[in-house]
Amino acid sequence: MSSPKINKMNEFEFISGVLRKFAHLTPKNALGIGDDCAVLPSLQNSGDRLLVTTDLLVEDIHFIRAKSKAQDIGYKALAVNLSDIAAMGGRPLAFFLSLALPKTLDKNWAAHFLKGLHQCAHEFHVPLLGGDTTGSKKSIAINICVLGSANAKRIKLRSQAKVGDVVCVTGFLGDSAAGLQLIRGKSSLSSRDQAPLLRAHFKPKPHLEEGVWLANQSAVHAMMDVSDGIHSDLPHILKASNCGGKVSFEKLPLSGALVRYCKSTKQNAIPLALMGGEDYCLLCTIKGSNVDQISREFERRFGRPLYRIGEITSRPGKLEYFHNGEKVTPSGHSFRHFG
Amino acid sequence: MSSPKINKMNEFEFISGVLRKFAHLTPKNALGIGDDCAVLPSLQNSGDRLLVTTDLLVEDIHFIRAKSKAQDIGYKALAVNLSDIAAMGGRPLAFFLSLALPKTLDKNWAAHFLKGLHQCAHEFHVPLLGGDTTGSKKSIAINICVLGSANAKRIKLRSQAKVGDVVCVTGFLGDSAAGLQLIRGKSSLSSRDQAPLLRAHFKPKPHLEEGVWLANQSAVHAMMDVSDGIHSDLPHILKASNCGGKVSFEKLPLSGALVRYCKSTKQNAIPLALMGGEDYCLLCTIKGSNVDQISREFERRFGRPLYRIGEITSRPGKLEYFHNGEKVTPSGHSFRHFG
Repeated sequence: MSSPKINKMNEFEFISGVLRKFAHLTPKNALGIGDDCAVLPSLQNSGDRLLVTTDLLVEDIHFIRAKSKAQDIGYKALAVNLSDIAAMGGRPLAFFLSLALPKTLDKNWAAHFLKGLHQCAHEFHVPLLGGDTTGSKKSIAINICVLGSANAKRIKLRSQAKVGDVVCVTGFLGDSAAGLQLIRGKSSLSSRDQAPLLRAHFKPKPHLEEGVWLANQSAVHAMMDVSDGIHSDLPHILKASNCGGKVSFEKLPLSGALVRYCKSTKQNAIPLALMGGEDYCLLCTIKGSNVDQISREFERRFGRPLYRIGEITSRPGKLEYFHNGEKVTPSGHSFRHFG
Repeated sequence: MSSPKINKMNEFEFISGVLRKFAHLTPKNALGIGDDCAVLPSLQNSGDRLLVTTDLLVEDIHFIRAKSKAQDIGYKALAVNLSDIAAMGGRPLAFFLSLALPKTLDKNWAAHFLKGLHQCAHEFHVPLLGGDTTGSKKSIAINICVLGSANAKRIKLRSQAKVGDVVCVTGFLGDSAAGLQLIRGKSSLSSRDQAPLLRAHFKPKPHLEEGVWLANQSAVHAMMDVSDGIHSDLPHILKASNCGGKVSFEKLPLSGALVRYCKSTKQNAIPLALMGGEDYCLLCTIKGSNVDQISREFERRFGRPLYRIGEITSRPGKLEYFHNGEKVTPSGHSFRHFG
């Protein structure tokens, strides 16, 4: 554990370059990189709470250097953390970047990575207020930590679902997984249809505005973001809320591009929608008597539907699937590609 | 950037094990691991500010797995971040751990790492409120992010040094560097003398109480922690404060163990004290007219001296060294081992 003095000058140059790039996002009452710690102002209201989320991305586990654009990795690294802030109904305050870069790395990699990171930071107006850079023997490692704030009374936890709630999602499911398949294989899909699938995979948009809006609705009970897919994520809500759930296949929101992609590759879209993951839309449960009104207002506000995909039941921990009213088991036809 | 589903079950088991171990430190009004974000209460007073610091440790850069005990790595990983909080005069609120572990890693490594981490967290009463665990191809990567708070009026920055200030440190210099040399080579030093040097290297104590106390003294102007050594660290204060500094070799606080170690290895202690780094005591500048009183009170409070090592001068950016009143240049005798 000797101190990392090698490349120290490069580190300082690198940091000051990063500083300049992100400086316009730094609020006036905050102190960013340059002292022992970053200093952030108090939260605006005493009723606000501080949200913290962090994610570590490692080369050859989360991305393959040769197969991913550094710019996409930069964008997505921040976007997925912002999605966690959205999932609590919060607003991002600042983020912190730790970066380990091998000495053999192509110089442009870091520049492109920062370009993508900056694009996301700029788009969602999140200042970079600190971090750490270091060398590494072989692999790139990226840690991002995002701080956010939310009103204590409006924070939406996974544990608040109630029997009779309607289960909703704020966006299409399965597009990102199809995008990942597209990169890996060949497809006869038109480039017009490929674009939204690839975009969903490389540049997921955190549903921050949607999260804040939903958090303001008291009839919205539990909320989280869809990172591993409904099939893995919804059980977290069911377990934390000690209830069950059912999801109807025919209600899963599938994009036209996904439907055409699945047709062209002769696969069932349902497993992609349920288990593909990395959708980064929001999954929430809403009191049954309020869901019509909330859906109408959501659509008016965001110009697209709030999709109802199922409901919360009283059977603790049990997630059941239905297709046009008939119960489907994981061994059934519609689950052909499962597992 | 596909999601890391491999070892997912292990990850959950690992996280729940970690949770149990650290649970007693979690404050009642905070929400730790288990939702999309951790939730922290508002800062106690509107005059408080949030401090954030983060550090990324990478195997083969910051530590060699075969040569460092996992427990020591765990302890130090948190301790050095707490030292940054101390440097601002802050108190730690919570920390967040991101951990990338190769699948081939010995099972006990993570357990021992967590043991050391827990020891430090317990000693300084800092709750673990979240993080991320993932696999890695080959190397261990550890990111720690610490949040702290400090009163806005008492935060000590690097930029506040004034001409005429006395430069002080809160502990011995060079012990950690000697400890590192001890691990790497052989020594005839008694084990009684080796112990404090090794401890300084493996288990540095963040000067949190000292930091808060010094921050409460308005005559303390600039402050930072000594991570790279006075020779590298003091210039940060000089640059930020647009002033110069001089340091007297004979005033550098050297432990008896260090003096005996240097005698036994026939080396000059000064380069170790100035450039060894990783001392993790605090470096501050104090108004000349107040330094006697503050030193007396510091000694009464902490049972050891506040060491005066030099003063702030008006020559911007210039750090000069003196030995018994005579100016010493980096090419001189006392710098024999420099560079």
